[in-house]
Amino acid sequence: MSEAIDYKVIGTSPIRPDGVDKVTGRAQYGADLNLPNQIYGKVLRSPHAHARILGIDTSRARAMPGVFAVITGADFPESERGAIGGEGGGDVSDLAKNIMARDKVLYHGHAVAAVAASSQSVAEAALAAIEVRYEVLPPVLDLLSAMQPDAPLLDPNCFTKNLPEKPERPSNIAAVMKLGRGNVDEGFAQADVIVEGEYRIPMAHQGYIEPHACVASANEQGQTTVWCCTQGHFEFRAMTAKVLRMNIADLKFIASEIGGGFGGKTVVYLEPLAVLLSRKARRPVKMMMTREEVFRATGPTSGAICRIRLGARRDGTFTAASAWLAYEAGAYAGAPMGPGAMTVFAPYVLEHFQVEAFDVLVNKPKVAAYRAPGAPQSMYAMECAIDELSIRLGIDPIDLRLKNAAEAGTQAPYGPKFPPIGLKACLEAARVHPNYTRPVPAGAGRGVAVGFWFNVGMQSSAEVHINENGTVTLVEGSPDIGGSRASMCMMAAETLGVPYEQIRALIGDTESTGFSNVTGGSRTTFATGMAVVRACEDIIAQCKARAAATWGVDADQVLWEDGRAIPAPGVNAELKPLSLAEIAGNAARTGGPLLGRASLNAQGAGAGFSVNFADLAVDRETGKVDVLAFTAIQDAGKAIHRAYVEGQIQGGAAQGLGWALNEEYIYDEQGVMQNAGFLDYRIPVASDLPMIDTQIIEVPNPSHPFGVRGVGETPIVAPLAAAANAVARATGVRIHDLPLAPPRVLAALEAAGG
Amino acid sequence: MSEAIDYKVIGTSPIRPDGVDKVTGRAQYGADLNLPNQIYGKVLRSPHAHARILGIDTSRARAMPGVFAVITGADFPESERGAIGGEGGGDVSDLAKNIMARDKVLYHGHAVAAVAASSQSVAEAALAAIEVRYEVLPPVLDLLSAMQPDAPLLDPNCFTKNLPEKPERPSNIAAVMKLGRGNVDEGFAQADVIVEGEYRIPMAHQGYIEPHACVASANEQGQTTVWCCTQGHFEFRAMTAKVLRMNIADLKFIASEIGGGFGGKTVVYLEPLAVLLSRKARRPVKMMMTREEVFRATGPTSGAICRIRLGARRDGTFTAASAWLAYEAGAYAGAPMGPGAMTVFAPYVLEHFQVEAFDVLVNKPKVAAYRAPGAPQSMYAMECAIDELSIRLGIDPIDLRLKNAAEAGTQAPYGPKFPPIGLKACLEAARVHPNYTRPVPAGAGRGVAVGFWFNVGMQSSAEVHINENGTVTLVEGSPDIGGSRASMCMMAAETLGVPYEQIRALIGDTESTGFSNVTGGSRTTFATGMAVVRACEDIIAQCKARAAATWGVDADQVLWEDGRAIPAPGVNAELKPLSLAEIAGNAARTGGPLLGRASLNAQGAGAGFSVNFADLAVDRETGKVDVLAFTAIQDAGKAIHRAYVEGQIQGGAAQGLGWALNEEYIYDEQGVMQNAGFLDYRIPVASDLPMIDTQIIEVPNPSHPFGVRGVGETPIVAPLAAAANAVARATGVRIHDLPLAPPRVLAALEAAGG
Repeated sequence: MSEAIDYKVIGTSPIRPDGVDKVTGRAQYGADLNLPNQIYGKVLRSPHAHARILGIDTSRARAMPGVFAVITGADFPESERGAIGGEGGGDVSDLAKNIMARDKVLYHGHAVAAVAASSQSVAEAALAAIEVRYEVLPPVLDLLSAMQPDAPLLDPNCFTKNLPEKPERPSNIAAVMKLGRGNVDEGFAQADVIVEGEYRIPMAHQGYIEPHACVASANEQGQTTVWCCTQGHFEFRAMTAKVLRMNIADLKFIASEIGGGFGGKTVVYLEPLAVLLSRKARRPVKMMMTREEVFRATGPTSGAICRIRLGARRDGTFTAASAWLAYEAGAYAGAPMGPGAMTVFAPYVLEHFQVEAFDVLVNKPKVAAYRAPGAPQSMYAMECAIDELSIRLGIDPIDLRLKNAAEAGTQAPYGPKFPPIGLKACLEAARVHPNYTRPVPAGAGRGVAVGFWFNVGMQSSAEVHINENGTVTLVEGSPDIGGSRASMCMMAAETLGVPYEQIRALIGDTESTGFSNVTGGSRTTFATGMAVVRACEDIIAQCKARAAATWGVDADQVLWEDGRAIPAPGVNAELKPLSLAEIAGNAARTGGPLLGRASLNAQGAGAGFSVNFADLAVDRETGKVDVLAFTAIQDAGKAIHRAYVEGQIQGGAAQGLGWALNEEYIYDEQGVMQNAGFLDYRIPVASDLPMIDTQIIEVPNPSHPFGVRGVGETPIVAPLAAAANAVARATGVRIHDLPLAPPRVLAALEAAGG
Repeated sequence: MSEAIDYKVIGTSPIRPDGVDKVTGRAQYGADLNLPNQIYGKVLRSPHAHARILGIDTSRARAMPGVFAVITGADFPESERGAIGGEGGGDVSDLAKNIMARDKVLYHGHAVAAVAASSQSVAEAALAAIEVRYEVLPPVLDLLSAMQPDAPLLDPNCFTKNLPEKPERPSNIAAVMKLGRGNVDEGFAQADVIVEGEYRIPMAHQGYIEPHACVASANEQGQTTVWCCTQGHFEFRAMTAKVLRMNIADLKFIASEIGGGFGGKTVVYLEPLAVLLSRKARRPVKMMMTREEVFRATGPTSGAICRIRLGARRDGTFTAASAWLAYEAGAYAGAPMGPGAMTVFAPYVLEHFQVEAFDVLVNKPKVAAYRAPGAPQSMYAMECAIDELSIRLGIDPIDLRLKNAAEAGTQAPYGPKFPPIGLKACLEAARVHPNYTRPVPAGAGRGVAVGFWFNVGMQSSAEVHINENGTVTLVEGSPDIGGSRASMCMMAAETLGVPYEQIRALIGDTESTGFSNVTGGSRTTFATGMAVVRACEDIIAQCKARAAATWGVDADQVLWEDGRAIPAPGVNAELKPLSLAEIAGNAARTGGPLLGRASLNAQGAGAGFSVNFADLAVDRETGKVDVLAFTAIQDAGKAIHRAYVEGQIQGGAAQGLGWALNEEYIYDEQGVMQNAGFLDYRIPVASDLPMIDTQIIEVPNPSHPFGVRGVGETPIVAPLAAAANAVARATGVRIHDLPLAPPRVLAALEAAGG
């Protein structure tokens, strides 16, 4: 457990640096930049979910007044195949084809052409003038049909990866993954009770408020600046360079403020189109998606089918578990089946388990990351199974989980042994939480679930400039989605020993600071934070050397304390401490400006665990589910900015509840999404939710100077099962499929004879 | 002399990185930025050269529709007194009052109020509606009158500085400076010949093509971003913070491209006004000067009166020299009398000399830096005196100078001994130059002069980011006026051992890189270049460590050669060299991104010497002077980008000739400048000048890794005397005062009985 370290800044909740500009409307988001001579780009999208492109005639569009450029797949260079890297991962060639279809369209909304014109309306008229001839093919819309050997193929060159032998026939199953330990047959034989079930989780969208938008401006040499909303402008630059086969040095990406991403802004959609259009048109090109385009043509997360089998002794000890997990990839390979498989059993000690997971192509948009990608689906199934077990065995669901909970030293299903983790601490905190010890409201049910996410490290860079008056400018390469400016300032303040207000953080563009991976994987506070701490340590070392030179002592005779250089004990006691401001003010005379830097590939991201419990009531006449209370407990390692951490936990709960209760992509038989708007795709609004109560547990991550674990993704994992388990306990009826929308709940109650 | 070092990139003339954007019109200068909701600021200027402000009524202006803000001196905080630092130097309080007058106006065009309004025409109408009541005072317009004890005082609190005792009465002489060595009386007693004379050099403007312009945008917390054309955005930030008493961390300055500065864009004029107006108006405020405002209200360089006495033996050896130098400060103290005094005798060995210099307030705009500030005035006088001596003694003017030329080990008049310098090399090159050995054209005269400038070091920062593909992004804090992007890329290419084209340089804003002083003092290639070299060395050290780790050897067993890490001789010879691109591509696995940095206060700027000679013809009927040929020879230490160095030499010659032949501020008796436009203030145009022949001498500066000396300022020093000496030799009449415009030349010829 956490030792109480006496931090001065860390663990408080100061005013966020970006707050005033955001509440006054000054903050510039993706669509807020306008350049002189700017024109507008628009995308023509496929009306078919699956079709061959026989021909595209853009001649009428090109001839229209006000049209500056028209592009189709033919304007792109042939892409190399190869991994992109980063959270947006996948294959370059798939990425390129997803941005602009070549010979086939693979989902309704797939881009087939784009135009740049003097206004949005001229651009739309030009789109209407483009003639595309299609040969319509039968769409493949559900996982089980897609996995059939005789299913229509999205990609006739797709042979299932990771099979023992190269398959003879192509398939929509892009890849399989197996994971296991021990002998599950033996394990199940030891069980007194076995529960099993199939769970379906729908495709769902991250639902960020800000649609994708960018402005690209190419000069006559092809050197291009792109302004866009992104979770990672360095990765966007790399992807754009790969897709367009450009020299990365010819692209500069500037991250705008970002109105939510949650994983969905880790991949390029518009940016390479805007660059190509700008190069052709010789003007800056602005592109903005409509909400409908965001739903139809950006990456939601996978729908999945998860089959779980779980055996236990009468005392609750798990003896074996197996999982069969099929994830929708959408149009191109890359469903999060890997993390789904790796997380499904991660919270528990299991001698015998096996997991089989599938990455399955369907005629839907290519999925993208969404908070803890893959984990909410598989862990939803497992946590429901545990709940069934808890009911069958008559063991309190928290006690049952505590009995089987992983701890430091437990070997994770995916290999390594856990260092100190906070799962048991969270479960113990839940057991005594007043929201848990109080009675369940009449007519409601209380559901419990555990959440987990690995968290990642990856590459980050940071620079720290000390201004002449001792104020500090900190440059990070990580877009600020969840408060990184605030948390970086806090970690810098703590490290340097100066007040938070003395530090300003900003997000450098791709030319102003070193490479940094996406803000994603819950890595930013951990990894970029570590880079900031190291850059501050670089500054401190320089300050100590300057003080030593000023005092005529050795650098190791100088200590840094409370933002000041002081002589070490035993050194000339008459030397007056030198503050950062004093050293900065004198920097010209002691060697020039103070400029610190660090870059790293952070290792040791601490695993994040959570426990959620919720009281839900079901209206038996309408099937409507109400969330009466929701408590989310999570190990943050160390919460740098408490209010932000609470916000992450609350936001994850809200998104998880939305997915559990209402959100889903609804398709017709032709593969056309029927609810591509926020009126029909219903994310929770304030009136749908109670206050989400949070409790932060702090089991420090030994790999981070302040003990930080990522907190951004874990919170979305547990709410799905917590909600479903509450509904099952409220009604006595277990509904396996999400969302628990009124029609489904009502039908289930009626089928159960309610 | 220079050893021939085999450089690969340095010394060539590659295409400049900013070239395409500049020739296609994409480059964004000070006036090229427009922000949404932007309004326009304009300045009301004094119609009097000297007056007391009795009252300002802005009420009518404030009430006008479309007027967002009106400010006067009363809106400024009380300024601290204290040095600003940097080349723009001077006193903070003076700077503040020069930006916006308080109780007195001190020159025609002095700012008294400013408005921000919805358009420029509304702003102008608002200015017209402001009523200012003045008590007009007699202006002080020439140096000798201003120095009289009973002269009207610009500042009744101005007591001459640096006198042995604090004076009893205030004076327009803001400061005096004395410099000397030996015993001049004794020295003159040893002389066989003594020449003496008084020389007058007019106030002249830098004549940069781009008028001052900026946009300031303040948010509700007062945090403000300023875009402007400047020679040093870090110093502009510091000045603005001091004048407005703001926290420097609340100001971000972005340097636009700059259309010439020559010292004139080292001081703020509009920026603090725009910040104040934006804060009041809560909108972005754009301000742009007209050409007339540039002439009337920015800092030209000092007019000066220089009296020289020079004694020599018959063989030409100088025995003693004395100088009396009075420089116009304009409205506030700060004429370049110091450098004027320090440079006047610097090229020569002089056992006995004395200099007395004066910083004199007059009712003209406060002067600013202009290429080698102070030196063209005093050295013009000295180089004319030497020419007279040469005629009197019948010694060739180059031989005479060679006889007395300073060299390594000579003690400079201002103190230190010269390290290796190139004066003798330049003189020797001149003596044998075909342009010198050929006959003087009939009717023309050939004038010779020497130029000198210290050059400075000061603070610079640089960062070097290695992209994933091995391309290099280099961030400097020095605005690119004379080609710093090109020269930095070249020095980085040479240091890293990669092609020039693999490197991109950009100018970071005040938040993106470390503090850097102005691009001025001919310091950028020297000091920022040194920072770039060190930042590249930081990268090389990291690359060697990465290669060592990859190879499993010690870092000191790795060498860096031709852009690759190679094993040191004797280390495992089978190890394959790793290129920068390979190391960069693998950086994620070897510790993260490669990010180098350096900052310094550069010491050892090498003194720059030049020798110019010119053939000029005089039309005896009109007095018009024609430049037939001009040859400029200069020691660059090492020319990084030869074409840019030649351009600096040619540009300096053009400006020096303009000043010598035509340029001057012409005032009426009320102190109103009569020629505030390029039609009447006549800078040389292409048809006025012959091709300037250049010869670069390279006596390496031992303090710079590549031997660089600054080259930007020296070139303007010698042309004034070279031209005047040519005219004297062409006509037999020595005209002491500049410019040698037709009326003056004609009058002199007539007075001489021509």
